Amino acid sequence: MKLASLDDGTPQGRLVVVSGDTCRPVACGSMMAWLEGGRDALGPPEPLTRLLAPLPRSHTFLDGSAYVNHVDLVRRARGVDMPPRFWTDPLMYQGCAVFAPHDAALSGDPAWGMDMEAEVAVMTGEVPRGAGPDEAAAAIRLIMLINDVSLRTLIPDELSKGFGFVQSKPPSTCSPFAVTPDALSGWDGRKLHGTMCVDLNGVPFGRARAGEDMTFDFGTLIAHAAKTRPLPAGTVIGSGTVSNRAADGGPGAPVALGGAGYSCIAEQRTVETILHVAPQTPFLTPGDQVDIWMTDADGTDLFGRISQRVTAI
Amino acid sequence: MKLASLDDGTPQGRLVVVSGDTCRPVACGSMMAWLEGGRDALGPPEPLTRLLAPLPRSHTFLDGSAYVNHVDLVRRARGVDMPPRFWTDPLMYQGCAVFAPHDAALSGDPAWGMDMEAEVAVMTGEVPRGAGPDEAAAAIRLIMLINDVSLRTLIPDELSKGFGFVQSKPPSTCSPFAVTPDALSGWDGRKLHGTMCVDLNGVPFGRARAGEDMTFDFGTLIAHAAKTRPLPAGTVIGSGTVSNRAADGGPGAPVALGGAGYSCIAEQRTVETILHVAPQTPFLTPGDQVDIWMTDADGTDLFGRISQRVTAI
Repeated sequence: MKLASLDDGTPQGRLVVVSGDTCRPVACGSMMAWLEGGRDALGPPEPLTRLLAPLPRSHTFLDGSAYVNHVDLVRRARGVDMPPRFWTDPLMYQGCAVFAPHDAALSGDPAWGMDMEAEVAVMTGEVPRGAGPDEAAAAIRLIMLINDVSLRTLIPDELSKGFGFVQSKPPSTCSPFAVTPDALSGWDGRKLHGTMCVDLNGVPFGRARAGEDMTFDFGTLIAHAAKTRPLPAGTVIGSGTVSNRAADGGPGAPVALGGAGYSCIAEQRTVETILHVAPQTPFLTPGDQVDIWMTDADGTDLFGRISQRVTAI
Repeated sequence: MKLASLDDGTPQGRLVVVSGDTCRPVACGSMMAWLEGGRDALGPPEPLTRLLAPLPRSHTFLDGSAYVNHVDLVRRARGVDMPPRFWTDPLMYQGCAVFAPHDAALSGDPAWGMDMEAEVAVMTGEVPRGAGPDEAAAAIRLIMLINDVSLRTLIPDELSKGFGFVQSKPPSTCSPFAVTPDALSGWDGRKLHGTMCVDLNGVPFGRARAGEDMTFDFGTLIAHAAKTRPLPAGTVIGSGTVSNRAADGGPGAPVALGGAGYSCIAEQRTVETILHVAPQTPFLTPGDQVDIWMTDADGTDLFGRISQRVTAI
């Protein structure tokens, strides 16, 4: 089942089941009510109009850094070493649980160093405290994509205070559709095997394989989040920026050079710094266009397209 | 107006206006709908039954550390220096926006080093991105108390990873009632002047004055949170642990010695370490009883009582 939330003037929108260009409204009203186990009797079909994020507002967004290659590269760019335990102990932060629609403008001060981060995310049903990875994986109800917008210039100063991201991670953007595990090509119960496509200004920027180099799968990430608390239905868990290593174990090459490219600009800048001493690709500037979508092994689009124009504040 | 949320079997509960021992249900249904500007036509009175947290689930909980004296003491206990800019740049973390009822058990593994943190918190209406402290303060719709439960043993390791609190800060507990600014004795528009009463096992532990030593007022905290994002209605902003310095500028004395005491055990342990080389007061253990409430200048209880029994996992 492919689900979305129509803009009906309320913050949470109206849950709909999507099929082609039409949708059937779901009687229980909102995605959150559906995740909480509300009835899912279906209403009559109606045309798709403006879509919100599938779950416009959750209570919990915990974003992992499951592609440790990304963490390693971005820390190198900040001049910070990566502790070896990051390969065994999941890195995770508590994020903003307000989610923007797939076509929201990326508006901000260019001095903030705005960057995209293309991620896979799951929504859970209830997860008891202390659940192990298998029980946690079984609680996954929906999968979607997010653009975890990051303000790179603000990050070093904010993280140096020791309490994580607040100002440097504004609301993330979601793919228009979220898909149930049974209906999702490439879903193996713990990871999603598909190509994370990122275009910057219409040019291929990233084609990373989401099922590879994911050190911590979603069952492990959810179990980490649930160690000291139960997770209510509607919890959103992010994978962190999808990132592939090159065949030699080093950072991957750009798409133009035959590599898998990158799912954020920071990685490309790090690779440029390693190869050419200084970064060459600027962070996002007003007028830039970011597109993020995922294809399965047959090239079929799975979640619709995140398509955002960068605007000045 | 004094508001609460009755347990009606739904996660968000049913919003009620409280007067003495009875309440009048509010037609718009939930606290979140009320904060989002829903109608507030009132229904017939009914008896108070089980109360949830006033806002059982928000989308955003941002907890400041406005009482910098507390930060200084707790960092000393961890053997970490405090940068001087902490006196001018608010420390804030993104917290768990799921809130437990006032009488919820404090359940956890005793090895986690469970501690209470008594705080003042506000709920906002919509706050535009970039709002200044005055505009931010004008958006405060309700004030309440929270117990920001902290797992002290887990904190050093988790914070050393650089991404803030996840496992070490499970859901906070709320006072049963939240009060509108116009009806709140001691509210000056930016700070709350009242005594934060904390009892541990029925013995006075803290009697800190919440209006004193608050380096960053709520307008400043909300403006910090809104620098790079708009805050939707229903955002919860915490003050951080209420903490007073002694008259000589040093850490305060215990209540039993005539001081204002402490709003968390970690502070008492730090003071003990400074005075006696090692901490003497253990963190919470099963069977302990924590009570938190606030009184105004006349000794009147403002928000009802957080009253929690500690239980093993």
